[in-house]
Amino acid sequence: MSSRCRRIATPFTIAALSASLMLALSPAFAAPPQIVITETQAFDASSVPAYTGDYADVYAQLDKQREADVAQLQRWVRQPSISAQNKGIAQMAELLRDDLSKLGFRDTALVPTSGHPGVYGYYDAGAAHTLVVYMMYDVQPIEPTGWKVDAFAGSLIDEPKLGKVLMARGATNQKGPQRAFLNALDAVIKTRGKPPVNLIVLAEGEEELGSPHYPEVVAKYQEQLRKADGVFFPMNTQNRDGQASMFLGVKGIVYMELEAKGNPTTGGPQRNEVHGSLAAKLDSPSWRLVQALATLTTPDGEIAVPGYRDAIRAPNAEEQRLFNGIVRGAEGEQAKQLEGLGAARWKNGRNVREAAAAELFDTTLNIDGLVAGYTGEGVKTILPHRAVAKVDSRLVPNQTPDQALALIRKQLDAKGFQDIEIRKLSGYPPAQTSVDAPLTRAALGVYRKYGQTPPVAPRIGGSAPYYVFTQTLGLPMIAGGLGHGNGAHAPNEYMVIEPEAGSKIAGLVQVERFYVDLLYSLSDALKQSGK
Amino acid sequence: MSSRCRRIATPFTIAALSASLMLALSPAFAAPPQIVITETQAFDASSVPAYTGDYADVYAQLDKQREADVAQLQRWVRQPSISAQNKGIAQMAELLRDDLSKLGFRDTALVPTSGHPGVYGYYDAGAAHTLVVYMMYDVQPIEPTGWKVDAFAGSLIDEPKLGKVLMARGATNQKGPQRAFLNALDAVIKTRGKPPVNLIVLAEGEEELGSPHYPEVVAKYQEQLRKADGVFFPMNTQNRDGQASMFLGVKGIVYMELEAKGNPTTGGPQRNEVHGSLAAKLDSPSWRLVQALATLTTPDGEIAVPGYRDAIRAPNAEEQRLFNGIVRGAEGEQAKQLEGLGAARWKNGRNVREAAAAELFDTTLNIDGLVAGYTGEGVKTILPHRAVAKVDSRLVPNQTPDQALALIRKQLDAKGFQDIEIRKLSGYPPAQTSVDAPLTRAALGVYRKYGQTPPVAPRIGGSAPYYVFTQTLGLPMIAGGLGHGNGAHAPNEYMVIEPEAGSKIAGLVQVERFYVDLLYSLSDALKQSGK
Repeated sequence: MSSRCRRIATPFTIAALSASLMLALSPAFAAPPQIVITETQAFDASSVPAYTGDYADVYAQLDKQREADVAQLQRWVRQPSISAQNKGIAQMAELLRDDLSKLGFRDTALVPTSGHPGVYGYYDAGAAHTLVVYMMYDVQPIEPTGWKVDAFAGSLIDEPKLGKVLMARGATNQKGPQRAFLNALDAVIKTRGKPPVNLIVLAEGEEELGSPHYPEVVAKYQEQLRKADGVFFPMNTQNRDGQASMFLGVKGIVYMELEAKGNPTTGGPQRNEVHGSLAAKLDSPSWRLVQALATLTTPDGEIAVPGYRDAIRAPNAEEQRLFNGIVRGAEGEQAKQLEGLGAARWKNGRNVREAAAAELFDTTLNIDGLVAGYTGEGVKTILPHRAVAKVDSRLVPNQTPDQALALIRKQLDAKGFQDIEIRKLSGYPPAQTSVDAPLTRAALGVYRKYGQTPPVAPRIGGSAPYYVFTQTLGLPMIAGGLGHGNGAHAPNEYMVIEPEAGSKIAGLVQVERFYVDLLYSLSDALKQSGK
Repeated sequence: MSSRCRRIATPFTIAALSASLMLALSPAFAAPPQIVITETQAFDASSVPAYTGDYADVYAQLDKQREADVAQLQRWVRQPSISAQNKGIAQMAELLRDDLSKLGFRDTALVPTSGHPGVYGYYDAGAAHTLVVYMMYDVQPIEPTGWKVDAFAGSLIDEPKLGKVLMARGATNQKGPQRAFLNALDAVIKTRGKPPVNLIVLAEGEEELGSPHYPEVVAKYQEQLRKADGVFFPMNTQNRDGQASMFLGVKGIVYMELEAKGNPTTGGPQRNEVHGSLAAKLDSPSWRLVQALATLTTPDGEIAVPGYRDAIRAPNAEEQRLFNGIVRGAEGEQAKQLEGLGAARWKNGRNVREAAAAELFDTTLNIDGLVAGYTGEGVKTILPHRAVAKVDSRLVPNQTPDQALALIRKQLDAKGFQDIEIRKLSGYPPAQTSVDAPLTRAALGVYRKYGQTPPVAPRIGGSAPYYVFTQTLGLPMIAGGLGHGNGAHAPNEYMVIEPEAGSKIAGLVQVERFYVDLLYSLSDALKQSGK
C-alpha cells in the first residue's frame, strides 16, 4: 500500500483494535468535537453465520501444489518493481500480465497511463456475475540499512515465534497475498475447470506513489467495469496473535504544499536567500509561513479553520454500531496501542475511545514536512526567500478535497495571508461499503468458518483511491484475507508461509483455502444481491 | 568572512549606503521601535585631514615587485583551504606560517585548537607599540555550478567594466587583501629594514564556520596580546564604483535550534515518524513548533518576545552622528539597494532611513532554517516525530546571548511551550570601536589621502567575534583597505588586480600602497594614543 495507506498493511490500525472485544458498551461517550455516539448496539461478527461451503477437491489440489505455490510467491518478490525508482516496473507488469494469460485470462494487456502502466485481464467463466480484483504490482524502495536478507532474493527463513516466513520486499505488501489469491484461483480452475464468477483483474504499478494514474486505468476499462458487481482486494489481515480484522472504507485525502516567498506586497527577498542579518530590514517568508500556519490550528494543534468540520456528517447508526463493536475493551488495549505508536498519550489527552472515534470519524490537518533555508548541521545564517509546508488532510464522508482547500484558503485570506500559495498535489474523496452489503457478509461468513470473529471498522484512518470503485462505478468493495505479514514500508518485510506449531496465523495453504472459499462465497453473494 | 558577516565582503552593506552622501539631514526621523535619532549633526569623513606621509622608496619597491606580488596572491588562492570540508586546511595553515617566517616573523607556530589550527607570528620591530593583524586563512566551499574558471587555478582574467581580476575562491574573502597586506609589509621591510610597529599576526582557519575556536587561539597568546595596542583586519572595501567605506563594529549573535519532539507530557510520537493519518489521534511536534514559533513574532514578523529590546541602549551621540552621515541621500539610493537585495520593499513598509536604523541599532530574530518530516518532491504522508527551527538573533550593545536566550525561553514557557528545547549553537556579544579612536582617525586620514571620503558605519548588521579584541583585550579594532572584490560566498569570486582605465577602483599596487601608508599612520596613532 502507498504511504497514504501504509496502515492497511501494518498491524497497528485494525489490528490494534482487534483484541478489543470483551467489555461493555460505552454509551456515555465523551467525544471529540462533533462525534456523538448515541447508538448502544454493537456490531459483532459472530452474528454472521459461518460459511458452509466445502471444496475438498480444491483443498487437495492446494496441498498438492504447495511447493509450487511457495515458488510462485518467491518468483514474484524476486522481480523488483519499485515504482518510485522505476526499477523493474515494466518487467513486473509483463510478468503479471503473462501470469494472468497462463491462468486463462483473456484480453490481457498492459494499460499505458501518464505514469507506470496498469495491467488488465478478464476471466470469462460464463457466469452471470463479475468480480473485479484490484491489485498493485509495485513495491516500496529498499531501505539502505536494516535488511538481514537480500530484499529481492525471495528468502525463506525461520523467524522466532512466527515460523517459516518469506522475507522480501513485497512479501506482504502486496505480492504475497495477491499471488496466493492467484494460486487459489489456479487450484479452482485445475479442479473445477473455471471459477464460479467472471473476474476482472485491474492492477496498477503506482500504488506506492499514491495511485495518481489509476483513474486513467479505470476509465479505459469503464465499459467492462460497468458489468462488474463488486471489487475485492487480497490482503493479509491477521496480526501477530492471529486475529484477523476487516475494514469497510478508507478516508479521502487532500495533500497540499503551502508556500511563502518573497513578494512585492508582503516583502522579503524574491530572488534568492540573503544574509541572515538582513532580518533587521527585510521581511521573512519563513516567519510569514509560520504565522500563516499558526492560524490553521489552535496552540494545542487542533484544527482552527472555521467551518472545517461543518460538512462532516455524524456517524450513522451502522458506523456507530461498528464503532461500538471495535472499542469494546479498548481501555485494556490502550497501553499496548500507544507503545506500538511510540507515544505516551492520545492527542490532547483524549481517552482511547475518543482517539478511536477521531481516527474513524474526524478529519485531520497534518504537517507532513516543513522546509526552509539551511537544514544541515551547525550554523549558517541566512534569511530564506521561500518556506514550504507539506500538509495533508484526511477526509471523511461529505468532505471533498476542493471544499477543504477552499476553507483553508479562506482562513488564510481572512487572516491576511493572501500571499501564501496553496498547491494541491493530490486529492480524492473517501470510499465505503456497508457492513450489510452481501459482499461484506459473505466475507465475514468465510472468516467465521476459519474461527475468526474479526472486528469490523467502518473505515481506516488511511486513504486509498477506492472511490473509483465505490463512487465512480458504484460498486461495493471489500479487502481481506487470512495471513500475517509485517514491515510493509520497512526492512525485513515478511509474510508467514508455515506458522510455528500452535500459532493462530494461517499458513500459505490456509490463506489460499480462505481465498477459494471466498471466491465461491462472494459469487453466491453476487447472485443473491442480483443486479 | 563567515556566513555571519558575509556582508562585510559583499558590497551591499556599507557599500549600499556608500553613495548616500548628498542630501540634507533628517532630524524628524520616524523610527522603528526604540530607535530615536535626536542628534542633528552628521559625521563627515572629509573633516579628517588627509594623511601626509610619503614613502616613495617603498612605493618604488612595490612597483618593482608587482609581478611577484600578483603571483603571491595566486599562490595563496591556489592552495584550497575549505574549513567546512577540511580541505587543504593544514597545508594553508603551514603556508601562512612559513610566509610569516620568511618575512621575519619569529615564534611562528600553528596553534592547535579543538578545531582547525590558528596561526601565530610575532614581528619584533623593536618598537614601543604593537599592532595585531587579524587574519582568516579559510575559505567557503565551492559552489557545484556557476564557476567559469577552476576555483583554485588562480586565474587572471579580463572582466568587462572592471579590468583584470584574480578570479578564484578566496580572491577577495580574504586571501587577496591579506596577502596584499603582507606584500606591503614585505616592501616596507625590504626598503626600511623593518615595519614602524611590532606586529602580531593571529590567524584562524574557522572564520567561515563562525570562529568557534578563535577564543582558544586568543587565550593561548593572551600574554603577548596584552602588550598590543590595536587590531587591524585587511579588507577590500571599495564597491564597483570605487567608493570605499568603513565600519567600526559588528553585531553580536546568538544562534539556536528550537526543537519540538514527541514528549510524554505534550504527546506525539517519540520514537520515529508515524503515518500521517494518525494526526487524528496523536499530537504533532510540527504543529507544536509552529505554534511555539508563532509566539515569538507578531503576524507581521516583528519580534514579540516581551522585553526583548529592553536591554538595548539608545544610539549614543556618536552613533547618531555616524548614522546621519550614512543616510544622507538614502532615499535616492533605495531603489538600487532594494534591487541589490532582490526585495520590493523594506520590512513592513519601513522607509529607507528606518530600515538603515534598524540594521544598525536594532536586534533581529531570524529563521535561518526550518525542517521537519518529508521535504522532497511530491507526496509522502507522515506525522514527523521532531521538528527543528534554526533561529539567530543579532545583538546590539547591552544585549547578551544568554539574556536573549533567557527571554525567548521565558516567552515559550509563559505560552505553555516548556517542552520546546532550545539548543544554543553559538553566541557572542557585539564589538565596537569609536570613530574618535586614534586608530580610526589614522585610517580615515589614509583614505582621505587616496581621495576617498568613506561613509563610516558605527557597525554592520553582520556579526564577527571581534569582542575577543575589543572586549576581552580592550583593544580598538579597525578593518579596511582599498580594493574591490565580490562573490565572497558565490561562484566567480574575484578581486580586481588591474582596473580598467578611468576606474576609481584601486589596482593591486595601489591597494598595497594604502597598506604601507596605513602601517605608518596606525603606528603614529598608537604612539600618539600612548598606553
